Amino acid sequence: MQSKWIWYRGDFEFYHGLKLHMRRKEFGADYPAFWNQPNVYPTVTFMKTFHTDTEGYVKILACGKGYVMFDNTYRFNVGQDIFFGEGDHTVVVRICNTSGLPCIYAISDTFCTDRSWLVSPNTEDYINAGDSPEYTEPDKTPETFPFAYRKITPESIRTREDGVLYDFGQETFAELSIENAVDTEDFTVYFGESAEEATDCRNALLFERLSGKMSYRLPACAFRYVFIPTKLAASFAVSAFYEYLPLEDIGSFECGDKLIDRVWKVSAYTFHLCSREFFIDGIKRDRWVWGGDAYQSYMINDYLFHDNGITRRTLTLLLGKEPYSQHVNTITDYSLYVIMGAYNYYFSSGDADFIKFILPRLKALYKFIISNLDGRGYIVYRRGFWIFIDWADIDKGGANAGEQMLLYKAMLDMSLLCEAAGEDGSEYKAAAETLYGNIQRDFWREDRGAYVDSFDSGLEKVGRHINVLAIMTGAADEEKRALILDNVLKNDAVPPITTPYFGFYELDVLCSCGELEYAKERMRSYWGGMLKLGATSIWEQYIPTEQGAEHYAMYNMKYGRSLCHAWGAGPVYLLGRYFLGVRATSPGASTFEVKPEPGGFDKIMGTVPLQDGYVYVEYENGKLKVYTDKEGGSLVLGNKKLALKKDETLTVLVEL
Amino acid sequence: MQSKWIWYRGDFEFYHGLKLHMRRKEFGADYPAFWNQPNVYPTVTFMKTFHTDTEGYVKILACGKGYVMFDNTYRFNVGQDIFFGEGDHTVVVRICNTSGLPCIYAISDTFCTDRSWLVSPNTEDYINAGDSPEYTEPDKTPETFPFAYRKITPESIRTREDGVLYDFGQETFAELSIENAVDTEDFTVYFGESAEEATDCRNALLFERLSGKMSYRLPACAFRYVFIPTKLAASFAVSAFYEYLPLEDIGSFECGDKLIDRVWKVSAYTFHLCSREFFIDGIKRDRWVWGGDAYQSYMINDYLFHDNGITRRTLTLLLGKEPYSQHVNTITDYSLYVIMGAYNYYFSSGDADFIKFILPRLKALYKFIISNLDGRGYIVYRRGFWIFIDWADIDKGGANAGEQMLLYKAMLDMSLLCEAAGEDGSEYKAAAETLYGNIQRDFWREDRGAYVDSFDSGLEKVGRHINVLAIMTGAADEEKRALILDNVLKNDAVPPITTPYFGFYELDVLCSCGELEYAKERMRSYWGGMLKLGATSIWEQYIPTEQGAEHYAMYNMKYGRSLCHAWGAGPVYLLGRYFLGVRATSPGASTFEVKPEPGGFDKIMGTVPLQDGYVYVEYENGKLKVYTDKEGGSLVLGNKKLALKKDETLTVLVEL
Repeated sequence: MQSKWIWYRGDFEFYHGLKLHMRRKEFGADYPAFWNQPNVYPTVTFMKTFHTDTEGYVKILACGKGYVMFDNTYRFNVGQDIFFGEGDHTVVVRICNTSGLPCIYAISDTFCTDRSWLVSPNTEDYINAGDSPEYTEPDKTPETFPFAYRKITPESIRTREDGVLYDFGQETFAELSIENAVDTEDFTVYFGESAEEATDCRNALLFERLSGKMSYRLPACAFRYVFIPTKLAASFAVSAFYEYLPLEDIGSFECGDKLIDRVWKVSAYTFHLCSREFFIDGIKRDRWVWGGDAYQSYMINDYLFHDNGITRRTLTLLLGKEPYSQHVNTITDYSLYVIMGAYNYYFSSGDADFIKFILPRLKALYKFIISNLDGRGYIVYRRGFWIFIDWADIDKGGANAGEQMLLYKAMLDMSLLCEAAGEDGSEYKAAAETLYGNIQRDFWREDRGAYVDSFDSGLEKVGRHINVLAIMTGAADEEKRALILDNVLKNDAVPPITTPYFGFYELDVLCSCGELEYAKERMRSYWGGMLKLGATSIWEQYIPTEQGAEHYAMYNMKYGRSLCHAWGAGPVYLLGRYFLGVRATSPGASTFEVKPEPGGFDKIMGTVPLQDGYVYVEYENGKLKVYTDKEGGSLVLGNKKLALKKDETLTVLVEL
Repeated sequence: MQSKWIWYRGDFEFYHGLKLHMRRKEFGADYPAFWNQPNVYPTVTFMKTFHTDTEGYVKILACGKGYVMFDNTYRFNVGQDIFFGEGDHTVVVRICNTSGLPCIYAISDTFCTDRSWLVSPNTEDYINAGDSPEYTEPDKTPETFPFAYRKITPESIRTREDGVLYDFGQETFAELSIENAVDTEDFTVYFGESAEEATDCRNALLFERLSGKMSYRLPACAFRYVFIPTKLAASFAVSAFYEYLPLEDIGSFECGDKLIDRVWKVSAYTFHLCSREFFIDGIKRDRWVWGGDAYQSYMINDYLFHDNGITRRTLTLLLGKEPYSQHVNTITDYSLYVIMGAYNYYFSSGDADFIKFILPRLKALYKFIISNLDGRGYIVYRRGFWIFIDWADIDKGGANAGEQMLLYKAMLDMSLLCEAAGEDGSEYKAAAETLYGNIQRDFWREDRGAYVDSFDSGLEKVGRHINVLAIMTGAADEEKRALILDNVLKNDAVPPITTPYFGFYELDVLCSCGELEYAKERMRSYWGGMLKLGATSIWEQYIPTEQGAEHYAMYNMKYGRSLCHAWGAGPVYLLGRYFLGVRATSPGASTFEVKPEPGGFDKIMGTVPLQDGYVYVEYENGKLKVYTDKEGGSLVLGNKKLALKKDETLTVLVEL
């Protein structure tokens, strides 16, 4: 019996989401996120009934002000010892907090605070409380996020004419520590993901002006290099505290191709750095939570940590709560990715409890989406709606095909989410079927064997994005997929996708069509290209034709590019999903499939996590070994399907 | 041109509402309110476009973190000087605040922050910003409520065996100041509205345990007496800082009957004490904002301060915001009083701007009310709904007539509020007409000439409450009013109303039926009775048969009764409304009526405030004088109607 801090479920995410989204600084200026964010419920009631056969006591701790009502009769102070006799009891704790997260913790010999408590925003609408395994100590409240810290020191310290440059050897996210400073001197610390950035004091994004202290521990930020432009720094003792979430790598991959093996490792490290309170896009610049980026992170997470907590936190935050008057991150497609992400999470985890919790919010968001469709049932532009899809030349005149395809998938997923929660989802399924027909009728071009971006505009443009989405969302059937592959994806005349964000979807779709060699070459050239330039984490974007510091520029800023971006970690997913070939085939991976494909590598070996288990795959020289500690697996070899036994290694001699 | 602090309109009220409702303490324990309270929007965008013919500068101050986007291009820090040239400009300020009220203040030679700015919770739904004339100084932010303070000193200090008792001469609400304390000694300060309470250390509701300082300034609370049970107190210097809202009495009343004249004065003082951030019920115990109590306060306010600000703040707070899942203060009738209060405010002030602001919230609350009606369209009990009406033996089996009558009035008022905001209200009016018919059909008893409490229960009980509400809401027509007066209100066989809360409505209704002599006698006996016992403010309840300290007990607490309660200030309203006879007859009192009735007094004289004006009435010995500084008034004498001229005194010789 272990008490945990408990709160109104979901509010932990809103509280830390707000803190995260107001933490961004650029060029010394605060830069909070521009979208609407929900606040926590400031007034919360916690309730528990219990039975005890002996006498006992309890003391309730809280963040906020409030009282404890025992057996509906006696009112006690927070922090006061309450003694009770044997029998049935009811504890109601009412907390108000105007500046933090209302939460409580029980110290008792009889019962504990945990998610079995009921909680409401002082209404009769009770749900189960939120808790987390990290918050079991009375003095570690959920108002502080439970990051771990590890001391790191510079790998090299170089004294220059104009100051001292510290190189921590690789990209990191850390609280810089300075000791032996001179308390009377003002100085500034410049951070850089590159040495160029750190030493370019006029253009560095991140810096801190300091004065008046002998020692400093600065707010955590992203850097590899630190530059202090004063000779005084020679006497400073500079180190840092790496701030991280201690997530365990379950996934692994090796193929003997040293470049690809390093691509996997650096991708995994990149993903660690971007997996924090939530899945953030990158660690230097905005450090915000974006529905589209996060959707890719859910997929990568499934093949690296398989950590359900961070996916739940991210989905809860992005989903927000009623009333809805804005799309997720203001972007129409991102609302749809949140619904799709929720189903992806359910399929990966089998966690129906979480789906039951978020379903009312998902339905309210869905209702908001639907209430803004046009007369034909299509998503169209409205004031304040950002029809994004990608930074690319996509025809967004009128109804865009990609938005409708995502809506189709979201409708299907809503129906499956309802079923997961034990509710009827047929309404959503029916809507999906109608929309499916309309998409084929309005956007498919039989003569071109492809979907057009838009038909309202009359431009009849065929591009990669929409046809990638057609395959990804299931809007294209088997026959159309084949046509798209030939006419669009493998057609060099169609302009390439240039962003790594959408490049991830394209690679996913190509791999799902069996084009593993293409993916391998792409990983070698694109990801490998960055590593050859010395990258220690995967960048937001890499354009091989750029030179030197050109690689660091973006968004009209000399060092605007993030050199550590979550979507760059795609290879972790691609190598596990398509090369090791492991995927769940029913919710929670109660059944799963292993279909290894060397894809041009001499050997492949590695691990893929699953809900409550994992699979190890090894293939070399015609010998395939598959081990799993989980029931329900099958090995798929061509048309054959072999059952995998729990805790046993299946060895097959086969040419893959 | 004067800058004011600005915020998301309505959030100032939610912020101070939360602070107020978590401030209650009883017997040393925190005791926040038990109902759901909305939080502020933590993410707010402020926007202004302006034109200037000269160069200029601006600096934005803020509570919270954020940035200033100038001309959609340049991002500046909060607190940074921004210089601009002549031309058209746009300023967007985005603020995030997780622990207070997001708000800004501009220091500029060119423009100012005021309600002309647009504001949104980081969505495209912009409304005009909130501001207040109290917040014009850069260093006085709206996170602190602008109370005034005045030093007061004890009228008497009595050293007793067991300590020192301080008497401040009358009920007050103040921050106690203690100087020359002994920093090594622990001691406790007990507060009392009566000397009995202050000196009864085991039962006093309010106390503060102090130690370790030489001087103290304690949080404000209600008291007349302070007791410090230590001999050390003899050397203390004890004073207090009266904390108040500097509202000006415009209303006045004198009749020569010294007791009634004092009733008016003490009522007015009582009302001052209870008029703070909002209209609160009383100053000692809960200090909460209740929809029913506040409804009476709006009426009293109209006849004393006519302060629109406090009424708007109270309505805004009580109304809350979407999504609605609970009634106001959890009480069904209180939701209806909020709608009625909104229309009362509009009629009194003519303030269509405020109505436009709250109308979407009113509609959402109304929708919540309607969505919980039963199949017959009646309000009935649902889990978490408190069918209150009054602390009295009312038949609440099934649909209660009083709830339906209030709903009828609320429907009518919704239709009028829509019209005030320039919208169509016919839907609400139609609903009211249907309900009106149903009420007559189901609750009126022709044979008894009265309404029954309930017909579902079969008890066929006729009581005062429901029949008072029938007249008050207009559910009873002229003919039925007369029958009710005879059969219920003037029928001693019907048990009396015992609470001052509902007693106020009864007196109002009786006066509206011309029973002024009855009201006069009631004021003499009930209010006068308290004064004869030494009351310096009007109590929550007065029962003439009680003796000594029995008067201080309530809710099973020896000193549970509040000795300063807003609803006790009813005479201010009754004497102005019915004796001086002044009332608005169209919104904003663009027309108004003066119909003086001495009601048994030898003379009456006094002032009644109106929107943008006032009326002075004086009647003695057959000579009536009426003065007003406002257009639109009429003097009504029997069947005659005489026009009042602005800024002129009309003198009429008449026997009233």
